[in-house]
Amino acid sequence: MAIKASFLLAFFLLFAGTLARQQQHQQQQQLNQCQINRINALEPYDSIQAEAGVTEFWEPDNQQFRCAGVEFIRHRIQPGGLLLPSYVNTPLMSFTEQGRGIQGVVLPGCPETYESGSEQQFSDPSKRRGQRVQDRHQKVQNLNQGDVATIPAGAAHWIYNDGNTELVVVVFFDAQNNANQLDANHRRFFLAGNPQAQSQQQQGQWQPGSHQEQPGRHQQPGRQQEQPGRHQEQPYGNAGNIFNGFDVEFLVEAFNVDKETAEKLQGQRDQRGHIVKVQQGLQIIRPPQSRQEEEREQRGHGNGFEETICSLKLKENIDNPSHVDFVNPQAGRISNLNNDKFPILRRLQLSAARGELYPNAIQSPRWMLNAHNLLYVTHGSLRVQIVNNQGESVFNDELRKGQVVVIPQNFASIKRASQEGAKWISFRTNDDAITENLAGRVSAIRSLPVDVVANAYQVSREDAQKLKYNQQQTALFSPSSSRGKGWGVLGLNTLD
Amino acid sequence: MAIKASFLLAFFLLFAGTLARQQQHQQQQQLNQCQINRINALEPYDSIQAEAGVTEFWEPDNQQFRCAGVEFIRHRIQPGGLLLPSYVNTPLMSFTEQGRGIQGVVLPGCPETYESGSEQQFSDPSKRRGQRVQDRHQKVQNLNQGDVATIPAGAAHWIYNDGNTELVVVVFFDAQNNANQLDANHRRFFLAGNPQAQSQQQQGQWQPGSHQEQPGRHQQPGRQQEQPGRHQEQPYGNAGNIFNGFDVEFLVEAFNVDKETAEKLQGQRDQRGHIVKVQQGLQIIRPPQSRQEEEREQRGHGNGFEETICSLKLKENIDNPSHVDFVNPQAGRISNLNNDKFPILRRLQLSAARGELYPNAIQSPRWMLNAHNLLYVTHGSLRVQIVNNQGESVFNDELRKGQVVVIPQNFASIKRASQEGAKWISFRTNDDAITENLAGRVSAIRSLPVDVVANAYQVSREDAQKLKYNQQQTALFSPSSSRGKGWGVLGLNTLD
Amino acid sequence: MAIKASFLLAFFLLFAGTLARQQQHQQQQQLNQCQINRINALEPYDSIQAEAGVTEFWEPDNQQFRCAGVEFIRHRIQPGGLLLPSYVNTPLMSFTEQGRGIQGVVLPGCPETYESGSEQQFSDPSKRRGQRVQDRHQKVQNLNQGDVATIPAGAAHWIYNDGNTELVVVVFFDAQNNANQLDANHRRFFLAGNPQAQSQQQQGQWQPGSHQEQPGRHQQPGRQQEQPGRHQEQPYGNAGNIFNGFDVEFLVEAFNVDKETAEKLQGQRDQRGHIVKVQQGLQIIRPPQSRQEEEREQRGHGNGFEETICSLKLKENIDNPSHVDFVNPQAGRISNLNNDKFPILRRLQLSAARGELYPNAIQSPRWMLNAHNLLYVTHGSLRVQIVNNQGESVFNDELRKGQVVVIPQNFASIKRASQEGAKWISFRTNDDAITENLAGRVSAIRSLPVDVVANAYQVSREDAQKLKYNQQQTALFSPSSSRGKGWGVLGLNTLD
Repeated sequence: MAIKASFLLAFFLLFAGTLARQQQHQQQQQLNQCQINRINALEPYDSIQAEAGVTEFWEPDNQQFRCAGVEFIRHRIQPGGLLLPSYVNTPLMSFTEQGRGIQGVVLPGCPETYESGSEQQFSDPSKRRGQRVQDRHQKVQNLNQGDVATIPAGAAHWIYNDGNTELVVVVFFDAQNNANQLDANHRRFFLAGNPQAQSQQQQGQWQPGSHQEQPGRHQQPGRQQEQPGRHQEQPYGNAGNIFNGFDVEFLVEAFNVDKETAEKLQGQRDQRGHIVKVQQGLQIIRPPQSRQEEEREQRGHGNGFEETICSLKLKENIDNPSHVDFVNPQAGRISNLNNDKFPILRRLQLSAARGELYPNAIQSPRWMLNAHNLLYVTHGSLRVQIVNNQGESVFNDELRKGQVVVIPQNFASIKRASQEGAKWISFRTNDDAITENLAGRVSAIRSLPVDVVANAYQVSREDAQKLKYNQQQTALFSPSSSRGKGWGVLGLNTLD
Repeated sequence: MAIKASFLLAFFLLFAGTLARQQQHQQQQQLNQCQINRINALEPYDSIQAEAGVTEFWEPDNQQFRCAGVEFIRHRIQPGGLLLPSYVNTPLMSFTEQGRGIQGVVLPGCPETYESGSEQQFSDPSKRRGQRVQDRHQKVQNLNQGDVATIPAGAAHWIYNDGNTELVVVVFFDAQNNANQLDANHRRFFLAGNPQAQSQQQQGQWQPGSHQEQPGRHQQPGRQQEQPGRHQEQPYGNAGNIFNGFDVEFLVEAFNVDKETAEKLQGQRDQRGHIVKVQQGLQIIRPPQSRQEEEREQRGHGNGFEETICSLKLKENIDNPSHVDFVNPQAGRISNLNNDKFPILRRLQLSAARGELYPNAIQSPRWMLNAHNLLYVTHGSLRVQIVNNQGESVFNDELRKGQVVVIPQNFASIKRASQEGAKWISFRTNDDAITENLAGRVSAIRSLPVDVVANAYQVSREDAQKLKYNQQQTALFSPSSSRGKGWGVLGLNTLD
Repeated sequence: MAIKASFLLAFFLLFAGTLARQQQHQQQQQLNQCQINRINALEPYDSIQAEAGVTEFWEPDNQQFRCAGVEFIRHRIQPGGLLLPSYVNTPLMSFTEQGRGIQGVVLPGCPETYESGSEQQFSDPSKRRGQRVQDRHQKVQNLNQGDVATIPAGAAHWIYNDGNTELVVVVFFDAQNNANQLDANHRRFFLAGNPQAQSQQQQGQWQPGSHQEQPGRHQQPGRQQEQPGRHQEQPYGNAGNIFNGFDVEFLVEAFNVDKETAEKLQGQRDQRGHIVKVQQGLQIIRPPQSRQEEEREQRGHGNGFEETICSLKLKENIDNPSHVDFVNPQAGRISNLNNDKFPILRRLQLSAARGELYPNAIQSPRWMLNAHNLLYVTHGSLRVQIVNNQGESVFNDELRKGQVVVIPQNFASIKRASQEGAKWISFRTNDDAITENLAGRVSAIRSLPVDVVANAYQVSREDAQKLKYNQQQTALFSPSSSRGKGWGVLGLNTLD
């Protein structure tokens, strides 16, 4: 098996690497980081290849991310790949865009309830080679397409792709969250792996060209103007997983193992990167794949009284039809996951929404009262317009599959699907994000007295009533809608 | 009717315009913005004239505002004037200093409970010209002198002056509030109106002189030293209400109206400014003006169980005698509106107080444990002294009607009314702001053991007892007080 | 009696004195203040001598303090010394390292429940000289060795040493706490005392040498590189206690005392500094010293329903055996004071822990999920290793009695006691600080499926089981532990 070079160091740099940003740029951002005149549709600006997958990074210093205090990455894990255990200093939400996997989240003090009592509990019994391996560990969860999973700040977690296709997981970090007491940069602490490998691989088969100074990173051109000098000053020296920073003799004593095994913890010879290929498949005890059984199993832990972190569900499938909040058969659908439907969100102060617009349908112009909103397109494409407090259009572009924009708190926006329609996932920095629509059946314009509308917009009362009542759909509007039907002065049957 | 030029652009600039502050000034403020050696009594430094009123601005970059993270403005709305619907990125509290009006607050998801069922519900039936206009909208509230009204961050609101005198409303913004996730600058997003008008009016009848570069703004001299370069770099280009940033074709579709009406939403030809003159009076359904009925009406929405934002009262008259907490017939009175009396404050983490000192009376020296305190004088004048942590007097001046000072958290202060007495309103950045008096019946000095007082101040036990017990009044002290009565060693009948 | 010169001014400077820090240094700290590559064991870098004691300061600008937003000081109060009443803009926690004393905390609105009804309630009846002195004040509390005491932000407090030995109290300030609305600098406001004394004492018997520019401060060499220019720009002028900033005529009126007494409040002639010698001992009503009685007395105020700040206990003895959470007779013990055991902590969002390691014992490598952790050694010494997110060792040193390190949130650490063993107190910036151990019976490694361990660390399943199960102790490991016992593949009796 060919082992590709992989470069955790670059990984660390991306997570921690805001050290050398230009001073002048920093200062302006600090006090006016939401003075936004231009937002761009963003794709990953950098990536780190590992043995069994790749992680792609959106530029954390882009103004729209800095304003919202959020960061965004995408893991692509090959079948049989394991994203090594790690934790970060912010709460995070992920969305499984494609594929299936198993995720483990290590919660301090929670019991190791998954126990190998019988053979059929193993995920892949055929691979156990007749040898009886007993084990006990904390519960793990299946990841399926459409799952929104949450990880509290500082909780270690890992992901294993047990499917046959690439597992694609996008991850949203809220660095401004109260749970992060470090500075507003997203940092990942690995429990395993070794970034020092890259020094041995620099001349190797991988990345021989102009990227020598940053092996392992695939950089998109033209995205660097905001962080000159950033890469040059990164620490290349003593980097690795957290065990690497301890003396091996301490580890020998703490784990009560021999020196050779303790050195394995530090993984200084590991050259696989942060996503490794599992040999012979991962044998673990896992929940049943059937959703019904899974639901029952997960709920069994809570009794409604002791809502400890151990009994809380950490994931919820946002594509589950029961979560749909708005449906318009001619226009699309919206599902929200807020603190009500997904209680862990109350602790994390985050929420998510899944949107779908059918071809050429429109989402009502609107703003979010109390949250930033990061939009990631999963299917098709849509036109998005975003407006700042000066009435300026700061974004007016096609947003395509795989692209991201951040709509800052209170900025107004409108979406129209392309010919092919569009689906997206959005992440919000509030567990009860509140939206106000500007048009439609439930909207600001309907809340205003007709005379306020008439005087504010200098229109007749008749036209004011049209502005209030002509759009009879809610939130999502079909392409041609009821245009042309026309509402007269007394068109108030809409009241009934 | 003469239409005055009005200049929403300048309005935007004041709300959003901290972009060009000098870098060096910024940085020092940032980390030590509460290292205050000098506070000044502040009056508006700028104003924006509109068709039917004017808004005056206190300088947001003044150190006392920056330290507290608050901003302050005053609307003066002429009879028949309508402050156009808008929302801001911070929670706000207003105080109606003079006049009466109607305020609408648009809360997402709340029902449109005000419905035109019969003629007498209209505020001004004489103006309906016999035409039957039906309407339905969210509840609106009367604004009367003494009302403290609150608006959650991001909630759209408008004010209409339906009285015969100028309506004067001062507004306090808490930019450091958790509900604001943008940077610490107060931004207003208008739903209607058009700042671009000013380019057509520059040579007109209004403001022809030296203010060409900032038409619509009346600037006080000598207030600019803290923000050189600020105005020059403001964007003049594509500014307007939020609809202005959307393509008109999108608006046509979203509102299902014709292009002409959609263009009215953008208001690009509107030259009236942010406060407009309502033609023929505003016909809306409104609550009864009698306080008693109004109270009953407002309480009807809540049942004590479901305290949704829709059922919460958003205003409270702080001059209502039932709110008085301290009365001293010889000295004055204090009314507090905290989270207990006014539950919405718990969500907004703000509170207010109304104070009155009779001529020459004194308020106990004191400090606030957990809040900044902005003071705005509504009647008369008073002498205020403010002391920082180094025991330095940072303010020792007369504070007159219409002036503002911010007393930062923990800074000590004392007030003495002038010969004419004084009334003020104060706004606090905590929903349960706690004050510790230094003198009087309930005070820090009384809480200390007499021997601690004697040793701390190097006085005899007798004098220590005088310090503790000579001032028998609470919080507010009459001018001559009980001075000269003298308390001896055994003056402990105060204990009973 | 000889009165030493004392210098409150310097005291103020240390609390408030971040004004003149180099701009460039500031900016870098601001956005990346947790980009830590090197942490040092810190001792006080400065101290201020007063008549009856000294306060020692840890450098607030040190990066580890800036990252965590905390500060640290140590009071050494001589027998009969009184730390003058003062308040600070942050919540604080103190630990009584040595000696005994009395602490008063002034809480606004709480009743003066301590009343001199009979003679035996006085702490030192022999000193009352036959004179009947009546008094009433808020409750005071005994401070004994091992007490963790809390003070809410802005609450005035004082400490009196009524023992026969020096009273040593270390104090932890959380400047990033929500309760602090000023900038992130710790400021102390004194109710009594006078720093201006130093100008009269400069040539005096005390500190005549090279310290003229900073009399009263004993500075350690070589600690200043981070704040050039800091001392030069401090205000020397009008400094003192908060009464000093008021006009004396206002104080005359507010306290209803003669001018001479009012001037005593300002204390401009006071030359004793911030810790003063009490003449003839302090006569106050105090709780009984016996712990049993004291507990009963303190609990009497709360009835379980009205948990006002007045009825909450403000201190708890962390050395009380009932608080021990982990005991390993071969390794040591850990006691935690969290919001459960000590409810006031829920309001302050702080907690504390007391640790003891026997000679050569080890504490599990671990990280804290949601808090910074400040470590202060009270006995013996220990080796500490701290690791950042890049796997770099940022600290690998002996930490000795009296030294401090801050372990930032999520940074990994391990401790091993020296030959003499070690005891420490640690302060956390979260009322429910959560720790994840890396090794031992309750740990991250045990939570992981054995196959994840095997693949992450490239070891056999057998070795993975050793990593999971060989260390059978919890959190604290005895020096030689069970090393050499060896766990085989089926070593799963640990499951039972």
